[in-house]
Amino acid sequence: MKVFEQLESEVRSYCRNFTTVFQKARNAKLWDASGKEYTDFFAGAGALNYGHNNPRIKQKLIDYLLDDGVTHSLDMATMAKENFLTRFQELILKPRNLNYKTMFPGPTGTNTVESAMKLARKVTGRTEIVCFTNAFHGMSMGALSATGNGFKRGGAGVYLPYTTFMPYDGYFGRLVNTAAYLEKLLDDPGSGVDTPAAVILETVQGEGGLNVASDAWLRQIEEICRARDILLIVDDVQMGCGRTGTFFSFEEAGIEPDIVCLSKSIGGYGLPMALTLIKPEYDVFNPGEHNGTFRGNNLGFIAAAEALEYWADAKLEKEIAEKADMINGALSKMVNEHREIEAELRGKGFIQGIAFTGEPELASKLCAAAFERGIIMETSGPRDEVAKLMPPLTIEKELLERGLAEVVEAMNSIMSAFKQEEKELQLQS
Amino acid sequence: MKVFEQLESEVRSYCRNFTTVFQKARNAKLWDASGKEYTDFFAGAGALNYGHNNPRIKQKLIDYLLDDGVTHSLDMATMAKENFLTRFQELILKPRNLNYKTMFPGPTGTNTVESAMKLARKVTGRTEIVCFTNAFHGMSMGALSATGNGFKRGGAGVYLPYTTFMPYDGYFGRLVNTAAYLEKLLDDPGSGVDTPAAVILETVQGEGGLNVASDAWLRQIEEICRARDILLIVDDVQMGCGRTGTFFSFEEAGIEPDIVCLSKSIGGYGLPMALTLIKPEYDVFNPGEHNGTFRGNNLGFIAAAEALEYWADAKLEKEIAEKADMINGALSKMVNEHREIEAELRGKGFIQGIAFTGEPELASKLCAAAFERGIIMETSGPRDEVAKLMPPLTIEKELLERGLAEVVEAMNSIMSAFKQEEKELQLQS
Amino acid sequence: MKVFEQLESEVRSYCRNFTTVFQKARNAKLWDASGKEYTDFFAGAGALNYGHNNPRIKQKLIDYLLDDGVTHSLDMATMAKENFLTRFQELILKPRNLNYKTMFPGPTGTNTVESAMKLARKVTGRTEIVCFTNAFHGMSMGALSATGNGFKRGGAGVYLPYTTFMPYDGYFGRLVNTAAYLEKLLDDPGSGVDTPAAVILETVQGEGGLNVASDAWLRQIEEICRARDILLIVDDVQMGCGRTGTFFSFEEAGIEPDIVCLSKSIGGYGLPMALTLIKPEYDVFNPGEHNGTFRGNNLGFIAAAEALEYWADAKLEKEIAEKADMINGALSKMVNEHREIEAELRGKGFIQGIAFTGEPELASKLCAAAFERGIIMETSGPRDEVAKLMPPLTIEKELLERGLAEVVEAMNSIMSAFKQEEKELQLQS
Amino acid sequence: MKVFEQLESEVRSYCRNFTTVFQKARNAKLWDASGKEYTDFFAGAGALNYGHNNPRIKQKLIDYLLDDGVTHSLDMATMAKENFLTRFQELILKPRNLNYKTMFPGPTGTNTVESAMKLARKVTGRTEIVCFTNAFHGMSMGALSATGNGFKRGGAGVYLPYTTFMPYDGYFGRLVNTAAYLEKLLDDPGSGVDTPAAVILETVQGEGGLNVASDAWLRQIEEICRARDILLIVDDVQMGCGRTGTFFSFEEAGIEPDIVCLSKSIGGYGLPMALTLIKPEYDVFNPGEHNGTFRGNNLGFIAAAEALEYWADAKLEKEIAEKADMINGALSKMVNEHREIEAELRGKGFIQGIAFTGEPELASKLCAAAFERGIIMETSGPRDEVAKLMPPLTIEKELLERGLAEVVEAMNSIMSAFKQEEKELQLQS
Repeated sequence: MKVFEQLESEVRSYCRNFTTVFQKARNAKLWDASGKEYTDFFAGAGALNYGHNNPRIKQKLIDYLLDDGVTHSLDMATMAKENFLTRFQELILKPRNLNYKTMFPGPTGTNTVESAMKLARKVTGRTEIVCFTNAFHGMSMGALSATGNGFKRGGAGVYLPYTTFMPYDGYFGRLVNTAAYLEKLLDDPGSGVDTPAAVILETVQGEGGLNVASDAWLRQIEEICRARDILLIVDDVQMGCGRTGTFFSFEEAGIEPDIVCLSKSIGGYGLPMALTLIKPEYDVFNPGEHNGTFRGNNLGFIAAAEALEYWADAKLEKEIAEKADMINGALSKMVNEHREIEAELRGKGFIQGIAFTGEPELASKLCAAAFERGIIMETSGPRDEVAKLMPPLTIEKELLERGLAEVVEAMNSIMSAFKQEEKELQLQS
Repeated sequence: MKVFEQLESEVRSYCRNFTTVFQKARNAKLWDASGKEYTDFFAGAGALNYGHNNPRIKQKLIDYLLDDGVTHSLDMATMAKENFLTRFQELILKPRNLNYKTMFPGPTGTNTVESAMKLARKVTGRTEIVCFTNAFHGMSMGALSATGNGFKRGGAGVYLPYTTFMPYDGYFGRLVNTAAYLEKLLDDPGSGVDTPAAVILETVQGEGGLNVASDAWLRQIEEICRARDILLIVDDVQMGCGRTGTFFSFEEAGIEPDIVCLSKSIGGYGLPMALTLIKPEYDVFNPGEHNGTFRGNNLGFIAAAEALEYWADAKLEKEIAEKADMINGALSKMVNEHREIEAELRGKGFIQGIAFTGEPELASKLCAAAFERGIIMETSGPRDEVAKLMPPLTIEKELLERGLAEVVEAMNSIMSAFKQEEKELQLQS
Repeated sequence: MKVFEQLESEVRSYCRNFTTVFQKARNAKLWDASGKEYTDFFAGAGALNYGHNNPRIKQKLIDYLLDDGVTHSLDMATMAKENFLTRFQELILKPRNLNYKTMFPGPTGTNTVESAMKLARKVTGRTEIVCFTNAFHGMSMGALSATGNGFKRGGAGVYLPYTTFMPYDGYFGRLVNTAAYLEKLLDDPGSGVDTPAAVILETVQGEGGLNVASDAWLRQIEEICRARDILLIVDDVQMGCGRTGTFFSFEEAGIEPDIVCLSKSIGGYGLPMALTLIKPEYDVFNPGEHNGTFRGNNLGFIAAAEALEYWADAKLEKEIAEKADMINGALSKMVNEHREIEAELRGKGFIQGIAFTGEPELASKLCAAAFERGIIMETSGPRDEVAKLMPPLTIEKELLERGLAEVVEAMNSIMSAFKQEEKELQLQS
Repeated sequence: MKVFEQLESEVRSYCRNFTTVFQKARNAKLWDASGKEYTDFFAGAGALNYGHNNPRIKQKLIDYLLDDGVTHSLDMATMAKENFLTRFQELILKPRNLNYKTMFPGPTGTNTVESAMKLARKVTGRTEIVCFTNAFHGMSMGALSATGNGFKRGGAGVYLPYTTFMPYDGYFGRLVNTAAYLEKLLDDPGSGVDTPAAVILETVQGEGGLNVASDAWLRQIEEICRARDILLIVDDVQMGCGRTGTFFSFEEAGIEPDIVCLSKSIGGYGLPMALTLIKPEYDVFNPGEHNGTFRGNNLGFIAAAEALEYWADAKLEKEIAEKADMINGALSKMVNEHREIEAELRGKGFIQGIAFTGEPELASKLCAAAFERGIIMETSGPRDEVAKLMPPLTIEKELLERGLAEVVEAMNSIMSAFKQEEKELQLQS
């Protein structure tokens, strides 16, 4: 790791937890330079829903390269892009009765969020964006202003304007309906909360600690927006492309956001790509009013188009559901067998985890112990208190089972250590 | 083009000028779906310095794919990244006596600019960033706040804070030393210009109209920064990787920026990638204080490492110089043969053009006429008044010559039409 | 009124409701140019707690003028200022065991609020100020950013930065403890609410609709601030100087704000004057870091010093309490006798009123009907739904009684009209 | 001075230079508590153009008080206000062919500036205000954002948004036309300077160091504004009411600002008062959209109306011109007799001074030496490098002559000391 320590910036982070140099990967397996095998329960933070180096997609990429297909095209028209647009329409939008224009805002999640915020302000002529406690939307200034994490906000070095944070569903206990609270503020001409251009939300907050918004709450937020000409933006960068069980994470709730942000797994193969889906009536940017050099990453289009084929029938959805139950079963067991600590199950579908509400540091300990057993998994939440599992959707059942067993073991080992420590502390006092 | 009109957002722009669907490409040639050939004098707005589908790089990419090399790795350590870091150190930094830590800020130009601005603010505890008239730094909120173009700024829909625009070298005529003006403002406790965290600049303003800063001016700016603990950021996203003749555009001036932003051609093959180079004493981000899903695009590392080999000896630099002279010759001729209109040569190295200062619309007309002749070239400048040539650095001399001849012809044809129109207008009046 | 319509700006407001030209005034009585008498239940929006042209103060002013005492002195030392400072120390601060340095921030409420916000930011190095729904703090940009009223905020024509609005005590019903909500947000590193420099609040929100914070809530807010080195600013501009029953409105709650803003009645005679009281440890402005031409209004010092004598014993406090009961009695009766409409008693001490929660427009109607009977009273609240009574503290009991009787009559008359209208509407449908 | 040190905030400033307790004052004379006499060459920083305790005005005030005239009236109609409005129309606006509606924005300079900035933003729907290097407009957040002084800006503790500082007339030497520079930036769509709502300026910068804008420059700025629908705001708070020789400081230049800010001497007697004059077509605030408790300070109206009588004929203007020549003569002599130091005459009319450009600290020394001789005078400029004279306009010629002689003596004494010090330094080295 010396090269990285000497030459790479101190800002690097994951490599500090997963201290080895990786070389190869296939679906949910990784191998490091020494040949050691790992199981990937992190999936590129949601960018590898179809696994590492998915063979179907790989072949398409190699063919395209061999054929000297245009690789980089800014926003010029290419065959690869045409095909992606057509397949996205046919396989994703049409079957769901969704009508969106597709914008390529630059290839990252923060690019699509920035474009969505800009567009909402342009459409409405308003300034403010309502976002939610523990939201994560990205690291460039606009997206960061809608991100709750104080550590990350601090990196900006400036006050982040134009956003208002509201309590997410369940934030202040079950008895407080936070959507009703938002509505009260918006309807009170003296509340100090100016009518916003948009409300931006994640249906499940991944970085924020696997907080799941209820369908009823999402529908209420949508109604609040509709009644006041406020645009509803769903940031589906992490939760989209099947992570929660359906292609869009908001399908179950039955809402229709005005703008949808997609990135991460939309690229299919882990290639940088992002989309901003816009209801036609709000497609009002002038040509070039938002742009970016890499909005025409054709390897991304090729990979993305092939990945969409997974949604041609219901097979993937069904598999996600079955395997999500396995994950849920393992995590439930872990929580139930260790009732001596405060912990709760969080999340949904292929992003579930355990929130160690009483002893936040156990989450990091669990991930470290899992890594020792060859499992790559990470924490999230404002205090890094949630240990989360988010394998590729395509993980083989058997590998998932084995991996979960390792996590259970890791849990047992850290809990033994924890109890031992507790005991020693009691003896000392 | 129907698919694009129906399915893609109105924000698309280049495809409106280059109205065909591209399919294949090799070095400086492109072919559309009908097989028609084009010569690329645009080079992905500077992202394709090594040409389309550079065969040396292509082979490396295919090998890596076939080998199931890790494609997406967040900021974990991989062999591909290790190799890139090492080669970048050996081939670029060491030979130039430069000492920088490398940050991967996310794969786009706007990502690196955002990270640079954040870091400068964190290092200094100050807020303001000084930037320059007609600067272009990107489209996310932070980078956009340092971008001069009013149309693009307007897309934000909000006031863009924390930046102060200063006149670029030569902005207010030859007699006004704009660096001295900046210095006066900074030294005057009553100027209203607060001491900034950083000065950010392009050594040649590409989007801004091919304005070239003199070496003396760059050195004076550097001195001003040094004397006041202001960080100097050079945005070399478009001008770096050889575009002006040397790897870094600031080598000739002999300055040493505190932070350097690289993207576009650093990826070698047109793949999304960006670097933020940081003097070690300013490498103070905490782990994860800035991050991004696609900062570990390993295909980019593979391609980028191979592209760096072009800088192992002086050959490329020499070729750039020779071919730049050819470009200069053709453009000079064009200007000299059409003295009836106000026009001037602009730019440097492999980014040169003609500014139609008297009749700005001629620039677009020239590009359109060139496209009819199979040449892809674009305008820049605040009024789109500059028609610019920026072919791949690797373009074959012969093709360059042929392409330039077409541009000369295109110029002749638009000038004939222009004179005809002028005559008719005179007859009418 | 023609002169005003022709020469004065359209921004004028109160003169549109009280459509006559006033000439003379004494205590709670006003006379217009035609000699008609009015009873003042508005008291200069709280600036005339000691009545109009209080004779004790008037004599002091005339003596000072006759004697050629310095009238305007910037912040130079004068005898008048020395005497005020001394008496304020002796009569107000010492007896209440309060230790504050006195700053003269310019003579208006908005000046003192601006100075307090600036100082809190300087002390803490933080940016954000937490303020509350329906707060009113003033109309210059800083104070306005902490003011909830959307109509007034809109007058700024710009986004108002650096403030976060939190729900005031009772804002979201009795069951939600809004102080606990604030605390949760401050303690959650992912809430998006950055630790503020200060919390600014009114103990009773006058303009906001006579919302009264409970003592327990105020104490909880103080504790929240103390535990996080957040400054607590009480804006006592309207509620101070006895309006709620004690000199400072926060005495009953037993809190000790770090900064207190005083204006309006501190000038004693309705003369422009304001104070910012600062705990000595936070008295860190450099000389002249905040200033203003009229911070040395010596007629104000003369009048203010004399007014303070009212607080030399407990007499005034006792009288306020007695007369406040009379006000309460009359308003209670009004509410009880008209149960057919939704209305509730609001406020405390010498600022009480009726909130017409069901039919907001009745508040304006009541004020108009009162004015026809010679009573000057005004509305407040985000929808102007509260008709409020705030006579001078020094009003004679008999005049108060007579005035209240007129208000009762006015209420009866508007309610008759209201019922009549309702009936007619029913008949129509 | 102990009382002030113990009880008053550290922010106090002038009292640190003029270290005595003042008691009485008449026209240009002050007496302290010990009976010592001072000559006032500061005039309340321009608030006492008609001298201290002007007897004509004093009598009106006493009569009004004795008569129980309404003192405080918010923005209700009063006889005193009606009279002021009428006389202002007759004596000031009409004779100068000016057509303005009068707004009472609160009684201080910063209030009127805030109201002007808000109004310009509302009228134009734009955000930015262009202001100038070394401008001073006030200390509340909006006005402070247009103030150049870094020390005062720093007091805000936050970044001050929405303003762009441009070089004032002559800022970058005689050869650079700063109005043309502004025009170039406004016309360049890539300059980064967005079209502003307004340009705000002082015709002479008092606090900024007595910089005088030429009439030609002012007219050019006006033309620039007219051609782009930018509002022109003249802040005449300090320079108005005759300070530069005419009632409005811009009369000579022949421009007609869209908004004029008046305060300081408009109150006649040093009483807090301010006006915002608005061209009728821009009088678009809704009722109460900007307000303030003390915008109805009737003692101010009484004093102001009487002070306006000074402008009923040309006598005052003539006297100002004559006495300004005396001031100019004395200062010229001082500069000429001490050519060994870099110093220049600055200012105009009744605000003239010497800029010690070579040795800024001599300005403070001169003021201190003058104070020892019983003269009250102050410094200005970004480095406090200008010693300025600004006596009441009504100062008796004889007293002016005596005072100027004392200043000349003070100059001689500090120059002797300065030369002595220089000699000693040379001997040492």
